[in-house]
Amino acid sequence: MIDRTRGFYDEALETMPAAKRAQAQREMLRATVLHAYEHAPATRKKMDDAGVRPGDVKEPSDLRRIPVTRKADLKYIQKGEPPFGGLAAVPPRAMRRIYVSPGPTFDPEGRDATHWRWEKPFVAAGFREGDIVQNTFMYHFSPAGLMFDEALQRIGCTVIPAGVGNTELQAQVMKELSVTGYVGTPSFLMTILEKAKEMGYTSGDGLSLQVGLVTGEMFPESLRARFRDEFGVEARQCYGTADVGSLGYECHVAKGMHVPDEIFLELIDPATGDPVPPGSIGEVVVTLPNRTYPLVRFATGDLSILSDDPCPCGRTSARLLKLVGRVDQVTKIKGMFVHPEQVTQLASKVAEVSSAQFVVTRTDHDDHMEMRIVLKDPAAASDALADRIVEAARGITRLRGEVRFIAANEVEEPEKKIIDKRKWD
Amino acid sequence: MIDRTRGFYDEALETMPAAKRAQAQREMLRATVLHAYEHAPATRKKMDDAGVRPGDVKEPSDLRRIPVTRKADLKYIQKGEPPFGGLAAVPPRAMRRIYVSPGPTFDPEGRDATHWRWEKPFVAAGFREGDIVQNTFMYHFSPAGLMFDEALQRIGCTVIPAGVGNTELQAQVMKELSVTGYVGTPSFLMTILEKAKEMGYTSGDGLSLQVGLVTGEMFPESLRARFRDEFGVEARQCYGTADVGSLGYECHVAKGMHVPDEIFLELIDPATGDPVPPGSIGEVVVTLPNRTYPLVRFATGDLSILSDDPCPCGRTSARLLKLVGRVDQVTKIKGMFVHPEQVTQLASKVAEVSSAQFVVTRTDHDDHMEMRIVLKDPAAASDALADRIVEAARGITRLRGEVRFIAANEVEEPEKKIIDKRKWD
Repeated sequence: MIDRTRGFYDEALETMPAAKRAQAQREMLRATVLHAYEHAPATRKKMDDAGVRPGDVKEPSDLRRIPVTRKADLKYIQKGEPPFGGLAAVPPRAMRRIYVSPGPTFDPEGRDATHWRWEKPFVAAGFREGDIVQNTFMYHFSPAGLMFDEALQRIGCTVIPAGVGNTELQAQVMKELSVTGYVGTPSFLMTILEKAKEMGYTSGDGLSLQVGLVTGEMFPESLRARFRDEFGVEARQCYGTADVGSLGYECHVAKGMHVPDEIFLELIDPATGDPVPPGSIGEVVVTLPNRTYPLVRFATGDLSILSDDPCPCGRTSARLLKLVGRVDQVTKIKGMFVHPEQVTQLASKVAEVSSAQFVVTRTDHDDHMEMRIVLKDPAAASDALADRIVEAARGITRLRGEVRFIAANEVEEPEKKIIDKRKWD
Repeated sequence: MIDRTRGFYDEALETMPAAKRAQAQREMLRATVLHAYEHAPATRKKMDDAGVRPGDVKEPSDLRRIPVTRKADLKYIQKGEPPFGGLAAVPPRAMRRIYVSPGPTFDPEGRDATHWRWEKPFVAAGFREGDIVQNTFMYHFSPAGLMFDEALQRIGCTVIPAGVGNTELQAQVMKELSVTGYVGTPSFLMTILEKAKEMGYTSGDGLSLQVGLVTGEMFPESLRARFRDEFGVEARQCYGTADVGSLGYECHVAKGMHVPDEIFLELIDPATGDPVPPGSIGEVVVTLPNRTYPLVRFATGDLSILSDDPCPCGRTSARLLKLVGRVDQVTKIKGMFVHPEQVTQLASKVAEVSSAQFVVTRTDHDDHMEMRIVLKDPAAASDALADRIVEAARGITRLRGEVRFIAANEVEEPEKKIIDKRKWD
């Protein structure tokens, strides 16, 4: 039986003591800022405009003097100076591959094997040398397929470059090639496993699948449990983007995603740019020590929460507890950020609530938050329940709102968790 | 201006004198047969059954004692002993990737960088370090995309893994990333170039495309001329399969496809298994010195013609003049093989002929070949023309047939060049 829990891809790096990591991160930051300043004209300009010289960045806190570069602006930055908007440190002809994300936005891949850094996530998820892995990410235009493919090879796995779709063939291949590992979205894994079951193949009875690394969409614990209990598959999730590669990965403990040591990650308040404390929601901002694409304070637009608590797996990094949404879905109410995820949290914290939606209005410079609540049983509506909901919402948002019980068919714009009706002059 | 004509990927190998190549091929054959015998159980069995020991194969002519393994049978061979039917020399877990061709048939890829050998074809086609290449072959399940992708990187190109489809995005990317090279089918290249033109991009006016390597379907000279004259693109073709990789590639002279030095290629009479002389049609049979998949006499099912004439490019290998069809389309008439390509040849050799179709019948153990001829001008029908057609057909097939002039709407089963109406007990 293979031990899929113990083991690291780079134990020294992953288990570094805090002081050593702080020192390594300091050195990495200095080198990255210098490299980007010298080779990426857009970063040089951003720093010059802010009056920051590379030598000024000695400590992580100095980094805050450099403004962020927003992922949402990449499209315009690239259009301004094609193809990479001055953010790449080498010309296109010196790159290994160039990808095209929807937009289109161009994503460079350098010639270094370490460009995307997915080896650690695979090992942490239990993938081992000799695994035969079905890679169901797309290889065309998007980098997802190839970045996982090549990392798998580097840890000694055999890859089936399957791409997405073709469920029946996927199930057949999973069986006939005795596939032991899967990488792709969690929902597609469930689709394949259900198709395989329909075709008569289940774990131990045709299927050999043991581990999965999933990403690209929300991965609820209930789905993880089904993979484990119904199909004998241990699935771990990871987080990354087409711009920067790996940004976090679960270990066998599966309580949050370890932040890779080779990058510098901040969680910042999207409004002030200040770092948020552990446990608070902030935007993921990355400084990427990459020879080809040395990004300095790249704001991903993803919102997450960091934890510094020690992890029993032995990895000493901080962990991203979960992804809670996108910056552009955040609403500021009475000076506080409220995020759709928090509305969803409310529904999960009060048992009687089926779904919730916040509607924000403004009278005389005063914000008003109405919490429209659909109950599982409409007859349960009561002032006492409304009070409990108000309290739960305060715990989550630190804001006081007003409850209004509505029927399911009264939900306006059901795709929105927060409806902002305020008018601004 | 880049010189895209001169230059080799491996000059010493590609320009070897005949005696040196013969010696190299002899050594390669001996080593391959020994490696396959020792590590691929199906090859060992095939040789044992034929009473051939590895040491018996000293000269290429000795190889003929070993029966061919037919590509068309792979599906059954693999089903008999999954997944590789005993033809692979290493277990699946030691492979780099595993692909799935329709069937499904599994195709192994070894961990050696030389597994598919597409570097020489790219250099011969004029691809150079620094080219930015749009790879429009599919990366999913089929090996085509990845085998070209990785060869391009090894010669120093930058790859855009585009896959097939998405014509408008392909044209946009070709322009915005200043793509200089294309690999894919010739028809898809024409589709992209026409779409680009429609969008206002042409060679020198938005597009930078200069070279193309095309394969996967017939590549008529008229299409090559259009790429060159209308779009400023020099396109070269190559030939290979998902089982064995590169089997032939055009140089800048573009008169036939050079046979790679690293494999042993025979053209055989599909009936007798004897080698056919240069200029005659035979089936391509490959012996592949691959550590992972050391095939011995793998019959591809493709029919081609070899030429030994020297090529002005300096490469000294034999060339496959063209691919003329598939073995399974061959019909045996009066003991002679007749192939659809020969029927097409007839139409091209007699100017008055628009199209031809052969219909074979049998009376008293005697085959009868009727040549149904559609003329460009039906009024041209005459006994003298019929005689010329009979003579032309004899030159091509060595068979005497009988001409019947028909109208275009009388053609039966137009997709067939040969209709076999013989009954066999």
